[in-house]
Amino acid sequence: MAFLFHSDAERGAVFRDVFARELPDLEFFQSGRGVEPEKVRYLIAWTVPDDISRYSNLEVLFSIGAGVDQFHQDVVPQHVKVVRMVEDGIIRMMQEYVALGVLALHRDLPSYLEQQKRCSWHSIAARQASERRVGFLGLGMLAQAAIAHLTPFQFPLAGWSRSEKQIEGVACFHGEDQLAGFLKQTDILVCLLPLTERTRGMLNAQLFALLPGEARLLHVGRGPQLDQAALIEALDSGQLAAAMLDVTDPEPLPQDHPLWLHPKVMITPHIASVTQPHTAARSVVENIRRHRAGEELIGVVDRTLGY
Amino acid sequence: MAFLFHSDAERGAVFRDVFARELPDLEFFQSGRGVEPEKVRYLIAWTVPDDISRYSNLEVLFSIGAGVDQFHQDVVPQHVKVVRMVEDGIIRMMQEYVALGVLALHRDLPSYLEQQKRCSWHSIAARQASERRVGFLGLGMLAQAAIAHLTPFQFPLAGWSRSEKQIEGVACFHGEDQLAGFLKQTDILVCLLPLTERTRGMLNAQLFALLPGEARLLHVGRGPQLDQAALIEALDSGQLAAAMLDVTDPEPLPQDHPLWLHPKVMITPHIASVTQPHTAARSVVENIRRHRAGEELIGVVDRTLGY
Repeated sequence: MAFLFHSDAERGAVFRDVFARELPDLEFFQSGRGVEPEKVRYLIAWTVPDDISRYSNLEVLFSIGAGVDQFHQDVVPQHVKVVRMVEDGIIRMMQEYVALGVLALHRDLPSYLEQQKRCSWHSIAARQASERRVGFLGLGMLAQAAIAHLTPFQFPLAGWSRSEKQIEGVACFHGEDQLAGFLKQTDILVCLLPLTERTRGMLNAQLFALLPGEARLLHVGRGPQLDQAALIEALDSGQLAAAMLDVTDPEPLPQDHPLWLHPKVMITPHIASVTQPHTAARSVVENIRRHRAGEELIGVVDRTLGY
Repeated sequence: MAFLFHSDAERGAVFRDVFARELPDLEFFQSGRGVEPEKVRYLIAWTVPDDISRYSNLEVLFSIGAGVDQFHQDVVPQHVKVVRMVEDGIIRMMQEYVALGVLALHRDLPSYLEQQKRCSWHSIAARQASERRVGFLGLGMLAQAAIAHLTPFQFPLAGWSRSEKQIEGVACFHGEDQLAGFLKQTDILVCLLPLTERTRGMLNAQLFALLPGEARLLHVGRGPQLDQAALIEALDSGQLAAAMLDVTDPEPLPQDHPLWLHPKVMITPHIASVTQPHTAARSVVENIRRHRAGEELIGVVDRTLGY
């Protein structure tokens, strides 16, 4: 019985150490190092390996990342469980980044940084947090964790998700029918949706037009969810006041893309949240322990929904 | 018995409304509108009026701002109580700004924004919050409130103050003897000191040299506390990795000052925390109620220390 680590060697070394200590009875393979395919019960990777069908006894396929949109699940046999990465490091980094982004947009940091480029010292009338409504598109685990860290700042909080949710202190909207109502009362929109066929291109001109004037966008979902041309138009027309993007389409953003130097845009290169190998390895160990004990795994993907 | 509002008309109008409702028996004057000096028991201003001695029955002098370094207290009769502004609006804005600044410095936002100017997409190795030590110079009310909002992010927290303090979850240092020990273990230094003769010029080359390599500075105290030339040298030598400044000396920062366009510096124009007239008026009303009841006032300045 074996575990196959099918990703970069650096993180693999961390996993190898943790597995040797925590699961000494499980053989540990790294890609290309004498794998015996029929032994592999557990496999972790960023994308589904082309030769997945070799591993005839595979039971669980783990993603290295929090999202699984890069996983082409159609080639994965139906009996194999697909599990996304749920680990403390990812969650903590997202909590930091979302708090940073929401506070930066709330406190007009993009405008102040533009002023700085012109050596200009002018204060902008500040709005109180209690009058700045923050709304989350997507209410999964990362969004809920981010919301918990925003709560002390007294922003009115809301969220929208496909299916109905109840979260204390958060006005919860759900389904297509309630999307417009959610957007109309959102001054800072945080996108933390998974990438699916439904969410591809969802952040578009029609959606921006439903937001109140001077709204702001924090995009920490996936690049293809955003119509980048529509964003630039909404910023230039004043419909949106500012945006902070951690994801783009494509990535890296091409050197000559107009978003780079747009005065109302802050860009970071998909660094909001990165799997941390130590905590990730411990989280996979815990899921293997659960699998062996016949317990429910953490982060199992609903293969009919794709996330 | 009267209250004199000796500042801008816009905020004065808010104070007038709140006082009319809450303290209808107290006459309300705004500067230049038929003040009868001997009636004035309470006065609020940003700087001490030149003609302070006219108000022979003055009992309490309130500052509009959280700091009182702009108050030339030597012209204020010794029996007059001097009170700084303590109000929810100031506190909440400082909590937002400090969280924004600490997270921006922790997550390398100055470097990412510099990369953005060059249309460059590169991730920087992230340090975990648990390995990023945040230290506060000054542990007054604003610092303690800011610390409370940072606590959920799991930064190791420390602080230094002139006199000994005990704050749960914060490693507290005090006095000159313990300053070097505090600095040696501080990766992000937040200055929230009052401006006094001791703190003027305190953020200088010797102090920066005591910080660990690649440390970062968030300055939300007062401009004259910082040796700006020494800061630029420390940034250029790599001793400091980045700085975010809300205060400068002088203010506004002159157009040709090298700090404006320094690639490792973010500047905001003294907007971290601004007295909010509604909450400020209610806070002054409460202090007048306390004064009349013979109770201790909130925010009384120790006139021997000057803050």
